[in-house]
Amino acid sequence: MASRRHFARQCSSILAGAALAPWSAAAASRAAVTPSAGSLTDVPGIRVGHAVDPRRPTGCTAILFDGPVTAGVDYDGSAPGEMLGVMLQPVSPLQHIHGLLLTGGGPMGLEAVAGVVRHLEANNVGYDWGIPNVRIPIVVGAVIDDLGLGDGRIRPDAALAIRACETASTRPVAEGSVGVGAGATVGKMFRSRGFGGMKGGVGTVAIRSGDVVVAALCVVNAAGDILDAKTGRIVAGARGADGRTFIDSAAQLQRDLDTTRPRADRRLDDQPFRATTLTVIATNVALDKTSLTKLAMMANTGPARAINPYHTNGDGDQVITLSTARITPSVSLTALGAAAAEAAAQAIRRGVEQATGLDGWPAMRDLR
Amino acid sequence: MASRRHFARQCSSILAGAALAPWSAAAASRAAVTPSAGSLTDVPGIRVGHAVDPRRPTGCTAILFDGPVTAGVDYDGSAPGEMLGVMLQPVSPLQHIHGLLLTGGGPMGLEAVAGVVRHLEANNVGYDWGIPNVRIPIVVGAVIDDLGLGDGRIRPDAALAIRACETASTRPVAEGSVGVGAGATVGKMFRSRGFGGMKGGVGTVAIRSGDVVVAALCVVNAAGDILDAKTGRIVAGARGADGRTFIDSAAQLQRDLDTTRPRADRRLDDQPFRATTLTVIATNVALDKTSLTKLAMMANTGPARAINPYHTNGDGDQVITLSTARITPSVSLTALGAAAAEAAAQAIRRGVEQATGLDGWPAMRDLR
Repeated sequence: MASRRHFARQCSSILAGAALAPWSAAAASRAAVTPSAGSLTDVPGIRVGHAVDPRRPTGCTAILFDGPVTAGVDYDGSAPGEMLGVMLQPVSPLQHIHGLLLTGGGPMGLEAVAGVVRHLEANNVGYDWGIPNVRIPIVVGAVIDDLGLGDGRIRPDAALAIRACETASTRPVAEGSVGVGAGATVGKMFRSRGFGGMKGGVGTVAIRSGDVVVAALCVVNAAGDILDAKTGRIVAGARGADGRTFIDSAAQLQRDLDTTRPRADRRLDDQPFRATTLTVIATNVALDKTSLTKLAMMANTGPARAINPYHTNGDGDQVITLSTARITPSVSLTALGAAAAEAAAQAIRRGVEQATGLDGWPAMRDLR
Repeated sequence: MASRRHFARQCSSILAGAALAPWSAAAASRAAVTPSAGSLTDVPGIRVGHAVDPRRPTGCTAILFDGPVTAGVDYDGSAPGEMLGVMLQPVSPLQHIHGLLLTGGGPMGLEAVAGVVRHLEANNVGYDWGIPNVRIPIVVGAVIDDLGLGDGRIRPDAALAIRACETASTRPVAEGSVGVGAGATVGKMFRSRGFGGMKGGVGTVAIRSGDVVVAALCVVNAAGDILDAKTGRIVAGARGADGRTFIDSAAQLQRDLDTTRPRADRRLDDQPFRATTLTVIATNVALDKTSLTKLAMMANTGPARAINPYHTNGDGDQVITLSTARITPSVSLTALGAAAAEAAAQAIRRGVEQATGLDGWPAMRDLR
């Protein structure tokens, strides 16, 4: 369970040595205390570390492994900002990856992946390609765009990613406005019409049944609204004139199809790179890359239930599935996929539940 | 609006000249009367025709066009049974298709596509490739598996597809256990554990806003349960021992991950080709093939909300998007995609609402 003490320790470590800007001070003072629902690190062999750039709300989250893991991917988002993701397709012969970096900063944030590579290289992790004293770590990168918060010239870099790697541990992962979720926001398609969005963040959930663990970690930075997948109720998203009531983005979009309405009333802030939900699924069940690709496609039905609209023009959504291959039980891919979808839907809700608000971007807890 | 009279006319036309077997007699006597929620044919230029093989519950649905339409596709299902679908990928230079056949019979049902090709050829529809007296109609095929109902050696063939083409019209599309939906079933993964499924079928919904029409036609033959997407409540699916209560397939699957439970209690009927939901989205808005591919990916979030689990190992789910390009309004792809997802989610619910039960496969209306 993530305790308040643990969270505070995480915050002080990620902020160490940096002057506290208003952004991070606010985040630290309203730290999440809701009980954990399990964590990506419940899958043995997975370590997660966050790092935040205190100068503005941006950051990254490194996911590292005790041994190489197999990975798959689903790229149904619109303009996914990724690095080495194409190598995860089943036809590519490389089976294993050594690290994964989720980072803010939009496409330019991918430069931070170099930090994970250097960290792994320094720790002698990577493929042995027969070159003396050289290991080749394969690190997959995935980005969210958080450039609209604060000074967009400040982006995660290799040094920040190295810090995330150094803090990586098997402890329960801190949730909310931390790591890659520091600058995440949701419900942001209608800002030019005066309808504000809300703060997003990182959420994580683990589902256990017997020896099997299926866990999700999501960073919620969606163009659309966030729903409780069980009830269909909007819990965070675009807010109406009172600042507290949800306008229901999908319903609003439906009215936009009526082109007899003035064009100014139909403006949409949904350009590519403006939003993205990243979902990481991990399991201890042995799965090959082809099965993990299929698992990603099925897992992606979870975010579809928790985000509406999802996969919009501005969303670069990605689902990355990981197997540590510790056990080989006779479980169906269908059962694993259903659990992955459920874990992801719950993790997305936690991402907004655990978020802490910033000026102009209230969190779910601020509207209670 | 689909009236009872229209439905009866449709039924009598598709059954003309054939002895009524118990299957089709039951279907005809319990014809759907719920008011229509709009129809795929609300998109001007689209005609739809059903044909049913009265010897067992199987059939096909032909979707024809007044002029060539542009099409896109999303194949996130597990083992999609398709024909000429790969040609819909954006990199393929062919922009237009001339027909679409949804058919029962599993992969073997694809032979029925030849009937649509012949029908179009006879009507001089197709690409002019400079060969005297020859037109090349491009007909995309998509199948569901309904082989488990009745004698699986009976499958839609070219003659049945020609009949579907000949009945195609711009009238509201009949829904429920007709055409490709004749043999559709849902909630069928747990039959070997004694948990029966329910009858599925065809549903269609149109969303209008100003001049814009976005419509969905779905045939619901899912391995999983069907939900009301607004409330998350299961409305059709795998039934418990009392035959009336839903076991909640996703919750059941989660228990299956516990491998300490006896293996016999974890048997799953979810082999490839056993299930599939087909979704057709049509709009009068001009969209190129690339935009239609993206529209399909976004539209597929609708079925993900109405079916759980979705994209299982046994589901060959496909989403096909069509544009008749009659209007070029300044509407966003995001707004169109959100409407498409909503229309699909509603159409899936209608597919089970409008279905008529068969022995061992009760319909939603039978459990009221």
